[in-house]
Amino acid sequence: MKGSRKIQVLRFDGRTSKTHLDTVAQEEPLEIRLEAAGVRQTVNTTMRTTGHDFELAIGWCLSEGLVARAEEIQKVSYCLSNKLEQRFNSLVVRLKTKQMPTFQSRHTLSTSACGVCGKANLEALELRCAALPSTESVTLETLYALPEKLCAAQPLFTSTGGIHAAALFSSHGKLLAVREDIGRHNAVDKLIGWAAMQHQPLEQTILLVSGRAGFEIAQKAITAQIPVLASVSAPSSLAVEVANNFNLTLIGFLRGRRMNVYAGASRIQT
Amino acid sequence: MKGSRKIQVLRFDGRTSKTHLDTVAQEEPLEIRLEAAGVRQTVNTTMRTTGHDFELAIGWCLSEGLVARAEEIQKVSYCLSNKLEQRFNSLVVRLKTKQMPTFQSRHTLSTSACGVCGKANLEALELRCAALPSTESVTLETLYALPEKLCAAQPLFTSTGGIHAAALFSSHGKLLAVREDIGRHNAVDKLIGWAAMQHQPLEQTILLVSGRAGFEIAQKAITAQIPVLASVSAPSSLAVEVANNFNLTLIGFLRGRRMNVYAGASRIQT
Repeated sequence: MKGSRKIQVLRFDGRTSKTHLDTVAQEEPLEIRLEAAGVRQTVNTTMRTTGHDFELAIGWCLSEGLVARAEEIQKVSYCLSNKLEQRFNSLVVRLKTKQMPTFQSRHTLSTSACGVCGKANLEALELRCAALPSTESVTLETLYALPEKLCAAQPLFTSTGGIHAAALFSSHGKLLAVREDIGRHNAVDKLIGWAAMQHQPLEQTILLVSGRAGFEIAQKAITAQIPVLASVSAPSSLAVEVANNFNLTLIGFLRGRRMNVYAGASRIQT
Repeated sequence: MKGSRKIQVLRFDGRTSKTHLDTVAQEEPLEIRLEAAGVRQTVNTTMRTTGHDFELAIGWCLSEGLVARAEEIQKVSYCLSNKLEQRFNSLVVRLKTKQMPTFQSRHTLSTSACGVCGKANLEALELRCAALPSTESVTLETLYALPEKLCAAQPLFTSTGGIHAAALFSSHGKLLAVREDIGRHNAVDKLIGWAAMQHQPLEQTILLVSGRAGFEIAQKAITAQIPVLASVSAPSSLAVEVANNFNLTLIGFLRGRRMNVYAGASRIQT
């Protein structure tokens, strides 16, 4: 299956062992380069599960604020000058603009004052995004039904047991798209890239993630203007903080007919 | 509890809801700065659970190859010039060397040829590390007993349900240290930093992680010369590849009296 690899393992059960052909989630590096006005710059190398690479690159550029709207992108293509085996591990996002956007990895962002520290992330988000509008609402029954729909659409998890999934639903619970990746963030970026490529508006959608909802996932939802983020697992303290600041509905431990609402409860129709 | 925060949530059970004081894993940015010869450079900003910050910084510098040995570090300290609320979110690792190590984030590493792509990671590892020696061995019973010992030493997971743990054991199964963090990689870096600060050799240890064993976790184990990496969950294809290349014993799905051995089975004494 695409996105996984067969590997021979030694399977132990108590004191006995036998060789077994196991399926593991594929992990490969993807280098994302930005091109503008004839200049190319590597902006990210992420470990990802192959498949939907263009969506991943576009979604990542949007999530990180390198590109404000998908319309700014002229073309995405693989680096065909590469050695054959690496050909599909590097791609170029060509922009229409005449100037390369100023970019520095968030991880090594030099801040003007020592006091700014990592809060630069939150401040950058504030400059970029407005708080989400409160218009949309979702029913309890819609929310409770989501995890089962995600499970049913997770072929890689079923075969490898080690992959994250994220899904976009309409506010009425219709599954719009699901993506799987070894990286939690990548699965979300792929969805955001998918929506950009499909001209799918996100203002009336719900994002469900199979893993934890940390700050970065919340940040991606807010940047994409997705009003409801639900997780089958736990949120982090900073995700709760940012959800409150930006009026994002943040749901955790969505399992069976139970859930915890950490922020934005006004959107939930009881 | 340190590393967690109390947050008021709306807990839904079917159609009824009530407010509830929930405990969530704390997530805060930590900015790591390197200082050498009077020059400071931000080398990383990671989202982490507070606690054991010095270990995290030292472990990260060692894992990423910025520092070859802990002895090269003169001092680690918080950035006391910061605003009060950010004082413990930024720290400085001061090196003894007269020169700042050349550093570029792996994520934005510019490669000389387009064909190098993300494989630069693997190649950098090859330059830095020798394959692990095959001397050490571990028994089946030692391995099977590890997850229970980790569970017993995971206070934050028990209270928040959303945190990763990593533990170091002797090759006879004695728990040496356990660290929890919202980031899987951070938990491992904290252990590596702990070992460096304690002058604890790692050549006869086992690293157990609560989450998946991807490439980056395998890379950290190899760089630290830990010969056995075990996970209660799945490995990735690239982790298996790198484990084979560097003679790392890689165990996945270690649960009850079962496990899968993906690489380095010769160290397992049956």
